[in-house]
Amino acid sequence: MRIVLAPDSLKGSLTATQACQAIEEGILNVAPDTEIVRLPMADGGEGTIESLVYALGGSIREATVRDPLGREVRASYGVLADGITTVVELAQASGHTLLSKQERNPLVASTYGTGQLIARCLDDGYRNVLLGLGGSATNDAGTGMMRALGVRFLDEAGLPLPDGGDALGALRTIDLSSIDPRLAETKVTAVTDVRNALCGDDGASRVFGPQKGATEADVRRLDEALSTFADVVKRQLGFDVAVMPGAGAAGGTGAGALAFLGAELRPGCELLADYYRFDERIAGADLIITGEGRLDAQTLSGKVVAGLCRRARVQGVPVAALCGSIGLSAREMDAIGLAAAMSIVSGPCNLSEAVDHAYEWMRDRAEQLMRIVRLGRL
Amino acid sequence: MRIVLAPDSLKGSLTATQACQAIEEGILNVAPDTEIVRLPMADGGEGTIESLVYALGGSIREATVRDPLGREVRASYGVLADGITTVVELAQASGHTLLSKQERNPLVASTYGTGQLIARCLDDGYRNVLLGLGGSATNDAGTGMMRALGVRFLDEAGLPLPDGGDALGALRTIDLSSIDPRLAETKVTAVTDVRNALCGDDGASRVFGPQKGATEADVRRLDEALSTFADVVKRQLGFDVAVMPGAGAAGGTGAGALAFLGAELRPGCELLADYYRFDERIAGADLIITGEGRLDAQTLSGKVVAGLCRRARVQGVPVAALCGSIGLSAREMDAIGLAAAMSIVSGPCNLSEAVDHAYEWMRDRAEQLMRIVRLGRL
Repeated sequence: MRIVLAPDSLKGSLTATQACQAIEEGILNVAPDTEIVRLPMADGGEGTIESLVYALGGSIREATVRDPLGREVRASYGVLADGITTVVELAQASGHTLLSKQERNPLVASTYGTGQLIARCLDDGYRNVLLGLGGSATNDAGTGMMRALGVRFLDEAGLPLPDGGDALGALRTIDLSSIDPRLAETKVTAVTDVRNALCGDDGASRVFGPQKGATEADVRRLDEALSTFADVVKRQLGFDVAVMPGAGAAGGTGAGALAFLGAELRPGCELLADYYRFDERIAGADLIITGEGRLDAQTLSGKVVAGLCRRARVQGVPVAALCGSIGLSAREMDAIGLAAAMSIVSGPCNLSEAVDHAYEWMRDRAEQLMRIVRLGRL
Repeated sequence: MRIVLAPDSLKGSLTATQACQAIEEGILNVAPDTEIVRLPMADGGEGTIESLVYALGGSIREATVRDPLGREVRASYGVLADGITTVVELAQASGHTLLSKQERNPLVASTYGTGQLIARCLDDGYRNVLLGLGGSATNDAGTGMMRALGVRFLDEAGLPLPDGGDALGALRTIDLSSIDPRLAETKVTAVTDVRNALCGDDGASRVFGPQKGATEADVRRLDEALSTFADVVKRQLGFDVAVMPGAGAAGGTGAGALAFLGAELRPGCELLADYYRFDERIAGADLIITGEGRLDAQTLSGKVVAGLCRRARVQGVPVAALCGSIGLSAREMDAIGLAAAMSIVSGPCNLSEAVDHAYEWMRDRAEQLMRIVRLGRL
C-alpha cells in the first residue's frame, strides 16, 4: 500500500510533523511494508517552517531579532533544499506565545522582528520568501516589519511614529525612499487561511484583537488606526488594502505585505500543495490520512482538511482523518468528500489528558485505523 | 457483506439489544444491502432475557413476586420460541437495582422472588430453565430461592430460619421433604461469568459483599454464615459446594443452584453461543462486530469479547469491537484475536455524556467503522 500522511497540526498538542511521525509509527506496526509519503500541512501559523523543511528537505537557521515588545529573541527561519526558498513565520519573532498574559498589548506590540528575519533571508542571498502569517501578538498592519526593511511611517510633523498599532492613528506620510532595494527583486508569498478584512466588524482589530489582549476601547482605537493606515496607503500608493480579503491577517500584516512587499496571499493548503507537488504525489495512492485538532463546521469552510479532500477527490484517492475530536456528521463528511474520521481518544477523558497523550494516542488510533482498513482487504 | 452483531451490554447505558440496533443503523447508513445477523450477548446479568428473546424469538411474561426485602414487585421472565425453554434472571426479582442505596442490606436480602419466578415457569409447564445469575442484592446462597421451591432451612431447635444470608450462621438442618417435585424433571442451567468460590478471600461475601452494602464486620459474618451453609450441605447432601468455582456467583446463589437444582453453571458467552448456534451462523461472515463498556484486562480473562474471539478465530472471521473505552494495546488485542477496536466517543467528554449519548455515538461509530472497512475494499 502507498499512504500519504497530510495532517495539519493539533494546536497545543502536536505539530503536523509530530502527527506524521505518530501516524507513521502506527501504520508500520500493522503493515511494515507500507510506502509512506509525509506531507505535513500548515496554515501559515507556527509549524509552517517545520512542515516545509520536513517534507521538502532543507535546514532551519536561527537569528537574534526583536520580539513584539522590542526585547531580543532567538527566532528560526527555514531554508528549503531547492536552494532558493526561505520560510519566515511571523509567530517566531512576533507571536503571542512570546509574551506572558500580562505582557500582551496589541496597542504597542510590533512586527519589527519579522522584518529583521526577512532582511536576514535577503542577507543570506535568498529572493523567494514564504511568509507565514498566524499567531501574532500584533495589530500594527506589518508596519514594524516594514520599518525593519527601511520604510518610515511619519506623523503630521514628519516625525517617525513609535512602534505599535495604536500610533498609526497619527500616520500622515509613508516614506519609501530608504526601503531595502533587494525587495524589488524578491518574491514574497504570504501564507494565511484568514480571509478577514483590515478594518470594520470583520476586521483584524475587532475579530482578533480581544484574544491579543485588546479591551473594547482598545479595539475601537486600533480599528480607527488601521483605517487611517489604509487611507494613507491608498492616497500615497493607490492601493486599496481596505477592501482586500486577508488584509486583516496577523493584525493587518496581510495589508502591509500586500502594500509594501507586493506579496501574494495564499491559503496554507494551496501553497503547500504546490510546493509538495501534492496532486502528483497522491496520484495512485491507496489512502490519504489527514488530521487536525477538531473536525467541525470550520473544517467545512476551506481549511486544510477540506482543501485536501478537494484535491484528493480529483485524483480519486480516499481521505481519512484522525482528530482530537469529531464534530461533523457522516453527511457533512460526505459533503467535503471525507471518507471517514476517528477521534484519537480511547474513551471518556478530559482535554488535558488528550493533549498530554496526543502522540501515543495518535499512533494507537492510526494503528487501529489500519487494522480496520485491513478488515476490508480480507 | 454479511456482518454478525454480537455486542455485550454497555452497563448503565445500552443493553446488548440496543447496541445491536444502533450498530445496525450505522452499518445500513453506509451499506444498505448488508446482511445483518443479530446475536446480542449476555453474561447472566440484566439483559439476558432480552438478548435471548431478541435473537431467538419468544415472548416476555410478567409475574408478581417478592423483591429482596419481601415487597411485591413485577418481574419479567422469558419464554423462547423453541417452546421448551424459559429464562429467569435473578436481577429481575432479587437485583440490587430494586433497592435504594439506603435499603441495601445483604444480611437480610433474599432470593425468594427468583424462586417464585422458577415456580411460575414450572406452573406454565416448562422444564428447561436458564437462570441468569448477576446483579444480585443478596448473599443468601440461594436459600430464599429454594425456600420458594419448598426447601426448609432449620436451626438447632428445628425452627425455620428467617430470610437472608446472616441467618445461615444458625443453619443446622436442611429439610428437602417438601421440595417442588417438578424440579426432578427440570433442567436448570445457571448462566454466570463469575468463577468465585463460595467462601474465603475469593468468596461471595468478601468480593461482592461491599458493593451490596456490607460493612467489614458484615463481610465476616456473611462469610462465616456461608461457610456454615457449605458444611451442612456437605454433611447432608455429600456435595462440597465450598470448592466449586462459580458457587460464589450472585451471593452464593451459584452454590444453591448447584446443590438443590442440579444446575450446570455456564459462562454467558458459551451458553448463548450454543443457543444461537453461533459457530454455524458466523461461518462465512465477513465480520463480527462486538462491543462492551470497557475493553480492558478483564476482557482478556474470558468474558464475552474474548469468548467470541476464540470462536470467531476457528471460523476465520475477524472481530472488531466498539466500546465505551479501550484499555487494551494492539498487542493485547492480538493475544485474544481481536482485529480492531474503536471507542464510541467522538473526543474528550465525561462519562455521563458518553452514557447519555451512547446510542447515537454507537450508531455513528459503527458508521465510521464501516466507512473505514470500505476504504480497504477500494
